[in-house]
Amino acid sequence: MNRIGIDVGGTTAKAALVDSEGRVLARHNFPTGYHLTGESLLAGCVEAVHRLTRDSAAASLGIAAPGFRRADGEGVENVSNLPGLDDFPIRTRCREALGLPVVVDNDANAAAYGEWAFGARAGCRRLLVMTLGTGIGGAMVVDGALLRISGGCLGDPGHLILDPDGPRCACGGRGCAETLAAVPAIVRAAAAAMPERAIHSLADVTAAARNGDPKATEVLASAGRRLGTLLTSLIHVLTPDRILLGGGGMDAAGHYLIPAAKQAIADCVQPFLAAGLTIDRAALGNDAGAVGAAALSSTNS
Amino acid sequence: MNRIGIDVGGTTAKAALVDSEGRVLARHNFPTGYHLTGESLLAGCVEAVHRLTRDSAAASLGIAAPGFRRADGEGVENVSNLPGLDDFPIRTRCREALGLPVVVDNDANAAAYGEWAFGARAGCRRLLVMTLGTGIGGAMVVDGALLRISGGCLGDPGHLILDPDGPRCACGGRGCAETLAAVPAIVRAAAAAMPERAIHSLADVTAAARNGDPKATEVLASAGRRLGTLLTSLIHVLTPDRILLGGGGMDAAGHYLIPAAKQAIADCVQPFLAAGLTIDRAALGNDAGAVGAAALSSTNS
Repeated sequence: MNRIGIDVGGTTAKAALVDSEGRVLARHNFPTGYHLTGESLLAGCVEAVHRLTRDSAAASLGIAAPGFRRADGEGVENVSNLPGLDDFPIRTRCREALGLPVVVDNDANAAAYGEWAFGARAGCRRLLVMTLGTGIGGAMVVDGALLRISGGCLGDPGHLILDPDGPRCACGGRGCAETLAAVPAIVRAAAAAMPERAIHSLADVTAAARNGDPKATEVLASAGRRLGTLLTSLIHVLTPDRILLGGGGMDAAGHYLIPAAKQAIADCVQPFLAAGLTIDRAALGNDAGAVGAAALSSTNS
Repeated sequence: MNRIGIDVGGTTAKAALVDSEGRVLARHNFPTGYHLTGESLLAGCVEAVHRLTRDSAAASLGIAAPGFRRADGEGVENVSNLPGLDDFPIRTRCREALGLPVVVDNDANAAAYGEWAFGARAGCRRLLVMTLGTGIGGAMVVDGALLRISGGCLGDPGHLILDPDGPRCACGGRGCAETLAAVPAIVRAAAAAMPERAIHSLADVTAAARNGDPKATEVLASAGRRLGTLLTSLIHVLTPDRILLGGGGMDAAGHYLIPAAKQAIADCVQPFLAAGLTIDRAALGNDAGAVGAAALSSTNS
């Protein structure tokens, strides 16, 4: 049965019609932004569902958004870049407007659930999915269910402290992994290490590395090692048997970051936890939020 | 209704008759050790229950032990210092021998559950209980239920990586909090910093600090800061609203360690997570495992 997932981001909402094996059959995007209201999100979702179901029915709708999932499942709250969504019962309003079952969840949860439902599922009991982009986020699926500790989520697994004397992070903490190893930190470190080059993006850093610049290679290896230290700590607390790494940072530089991360993990991890663990690139790419939201809409969560 | 809890340690099992408010009414200890078999543990538990119920009935029995809780709840496994307990169905055997409902769980789980049931409960949704002794362990109670991710436990929350270039830990990892901030590490650091003193225990370190030795004070403050970094990372991932700190290390040096830990947390934590969080000494002391096991035996877990 086909389902619809909508991944509500800070600038764009990506809607997708997804089949029962996780394939995207059709897409429709609509704009969001800081001034998005609940009513305008509702209108965007309704139009997206109408467009995507013109030729084919859908059994349910899943909506993924940043922030915490409300305890009643009606929406999300505390979304810093989409403040208009607080207190808006998008689930009930969409259900009433569309006559479809609707599920709303955090976007990291949706991405992790999608990776589980359409890939990692077989033989995987504890899946940790981490996303490296402007920030570092993540979520976990344990025995087929999302791990919900607070606000319907795993906390902020990208914000373990790597250096208590480090810089202040946007989260308000200090020396978090995100502020030391997410994409902006890598670009900053590379720009400082290679003032002779024009480094404005992670692609610029990997281009320099491909051209044989040892400073670029070292910046990427250092970020990968920090990512590995973060992952080792998460392995010790959360004991995943599978880790999938996604996000724009992995798309641009995964083949530099992941080997360095794996080396750092091998050096610091408890051997018995490493024994049963596999670490790979996430499979769903940019569609993870929408595809995962569609998958979640088949559950009761 | 009174219940019995038995905390099975590496050298001694501590059994206690516990009333419905967590008070210990009577105690009975029996020896354990590396060569303890399942049958001898059974015999010890049966004798303890008989002694403790001579004057007063008990409604149920809880058994806490190190290691992982078996998925079927029948016992514990992978207990490195009590290998004879693997594969022994202590729950069913005790139930048959005693005619009582029996629950078996990990000892850190039992201690955390006891702190929740007989103290933190009111107003606490996410309780993290950490124990500082020869090692650093912990467990978490979320909305009244133990957080079980793997082996019936939270993973090894005392083994987050504080220094990826640090020493090898007994867990097989490198630079874990346990190897840098548990009691043996504090004693080692103090002995190295004060070769002129005879430092053999944490009590020796705190005695030196009380006598005004600035090196002792700095060793304790440094360990407290490391504990604070560990706790900050755990706060970011697990989002507790209450943390209780117990164990022999806290008994001996809590008034040195906790202020330094709180200062490190205040410096590095996400402010919105700090806002709703309280951090205190655990209340149940040495009885935590037995009292918590008794409390767990009133549940179905």
